[in-house]
Amino acid sequence: MTEEHAPTHAVIMAGGSGTRFWPASRRARPKQLLPLAGGDEPLIASTLRRLSGLADPEHTWIVTSELLADATAAATPSLPRSNVLAEPVGRNTAPCVGWAASIIARTDPKAVIAVLPADHHIGDEEGYRAVLARAIAAAREGDVVTVGITPTRPEIGYGYIEVGEEISEGVNRAARFVEKPDRAKAEEYLAQGRFLWNSGMFFFRADVILDAIREHLPELASALADFDAAAAQGREAAVVSERYATLPSISIDHGVMERAKRVAVVPGDFGWSDLGSWTTAWELAERDANDNAGPNDAVFIDADGCYVRAPAGKLVALVGVEGLVVVDTEDALLVVPRGEAQRVRDVVKELRDRGDERL
Amino acid sequence: MTEEHAPTHAVIMAGGSGTRFWPASRRARPKQLLPLAGGDEPLIASTLRRLSGLADPEHTWIVTSELLADATAAATPSLPRSNVLAEPVGRNTAPCVGWAASIIARTDPKAVIAVLPADHHIGDEEGYRAVLARAIAAAREGDVVTVGITPTRPEIGYGYIEVGEEISEGVNRAARFVEKPDRAKAEEYLAQGRFLWNSGMFFFRADVILDAIREHLPELASALADFDAAAAQGREAAVVSERYATLPSISIDHGVMERAKRVAVVPGDFGWSDLGSWTTAWELAERDANDNAGPNDAVFIDADGCYVRAPAGKLVALVGVEGLVVVDTEDALLVVPRGEAQRVRDVVKELRDRGDERL
Repeated sequence: MTEEHAPTHAVIMAGGSGTRFWPASRRARPKQLLPLAGGDEPLIASTLRRLSGLADPEHTWIVTSELLADATAAATPSLPRSNVLAEPVGRNTAPCVGWAASIIARTDPKAVIAVLPADHHIGDEEGYRAVLARAIAAAREGDVVTVGITPTRPEIGYGYIEVGEEISEGVNRAARFVEKPDRAKAEEYLAQGRFLWNSGMFFFRADVILDAIREHLPELASALADFDAAAAQGREAAVVSERYATLPSISIDHGVMERAKRVAVVPGDFGWSDLGSWTTAWELAERDANDNAGPNDAVFIDADGCYVRAPAGKLVALVGVEGLVVVDTEDALLVVPRGEAQRVRDVVKELRDRGDERL
Repeated sequence: MTEEHAPTHAVIMAGGSGTRFWPASRRARPKQLLPLAGGDEPLIASTLRRLSGLADPEHTWIVTSELLADATAAATPSLPRSNVLAEPVGRNTAPCVGWAASIIARTDPKAVIAVLPADHHIGDEEGYRAVLARAIAAAREGDVVTVGITPTRPEIGYGYIEVGEEISEGVNRAARFVEKPDRAKAEEYLAQGRFLWNSGMFFFRADVILDAIREHLPELASALADFDAAAAQGREAAVVSERYATLPSISIDHGVMERAKRVAVVPGDFGWSDLGSWTTAWELAERDANDNAGPNDAVFIDADGCYVRAPAGKLVALVGVEGLVVVDTEDALLVVPRGEAQRVRDVVKELRDRGDERL
């Protein structure tokens, strides 16, 4: 049965100013604007490209910060510039999703919205599109839908979703959301086989999520109503600029998903990675026989398991070292053991404390 | 007793195109042109400055290669440009010393010549000058004189001099020169206390060394006579350019010193270092409480015993690493454990094999 229905919209959350990829990522050039998974394509451009056949460019929206809006638009030339929404200030994901849903609802209130992070890596893009198509179809029926990733290790860095009964082929009820577990819990989840990683992708109709926001986050709903009224008078930008900082800072997960009634989860297994650190970048990179990844002209002598990133034209030579991450840029250089790559946060903190602009 | 005598000349051997300090040192910017001992002063400029009171600039000569002549002259502006002698091709130290001695002998045949490497570090400059003054005085009597350094460790990278009877205060007969020893021999030399490191500094009168060259290296002596004849006709440059490549490639140590009859050694202990590798640079550098040395703005987090060198404006952050040498330049970056710094040779060899110009 083929029904006529509103076009699917995609909302790409691209406000991240993550510091985990310093010094390649900076405040004004965060992770999603970098080609961190190899090749030349910034992660956000890969995210858009992967949506081919699921959402058209004119129905694809990016929510980012004012600081990043121009660079984000430059990295996504296929999108209408007006589809790049700039938050005056970051207030976590609920306001971001709510605002985009309001804008979409003004023309397509019944449209399904796929909310997607801008900065993930997908190994199997066909598999990804199949899972998304299933999630979109489920959302069209009025469910709030998530995608859960089959865990491959007892990861303590992610939230989990417990899978409930199957409600249609490849779609299950989500029994509950679980916070990032400790090691023992994570091992248990992995062993039980009924827990999936929360991928941070959400699917719902515009009217469904706006109803849920009215129910669970009335303060946000009230602001969104003001945005709608202002938009009708052609002065949305001014009101957003004035009100945004007063919105509740809460995630869509906590604020809505965990409280919503009809939540479904589509299990997926398509080479997903949230690209959380340089360690992940090394895992995804093409590596030589000694497990080193780096520019073609890098010199590795008696070096194993190293990850090198450097500007074109820069020769990097590693001799007699093991498991090092070496990230070089024009004005900053990081050297850290691969297993401790998350400690780059300490460097960023130090620079912030110093007031160093190479942040 | 104050005698009238010819002014002392100094000949600085600055032909080295060493690769041990890559990537800071390059073919066209070798060790002696770099401020490797801290501060801003290139090693060759420090060498000149240390000669204050021993040899005047107009009696100080630098022998280098044609490739390095201009940069060397630029680093030593106090010297007359004509005192920078450019070898058309490197033929080890005997031709270098012989040529400089010939030039000096044309005006000051009885002058004492102090032959000094351009790229050593001296911790105690007053002590150094006192030892050199003693060596110069001994050379004036017709001896061939060396300076021997009191060993502080069983070093296998240096040649040794066995000390003989004292012939005047602080001046001994040199019993023999010894090649770089193996570890066991080096331990024995250190224990015996009669062996000194060969510092590569030599002192002799111009007529004495030229006589010795005539006796031990007649082929070189013959070429030097041709240079003299050509100089008298104002066409030395052309003859040097034509003949230099045919000169015997032999060190002044092997070719003359070890065969000369009246060889003396002045023991010295003035914080001498030949600055042989990045390891030595770390040893000489100012270090923080965790034994890290680097630019003032470097970030060391849980890092110990590391040496960092980087261009001004470049922020280097080391996290969770120990004993690493990290040397960054505009177009090349080296990471190697401090104890294996000499393996930089392998990198240089690799670049030479590749034909990479970042050599």
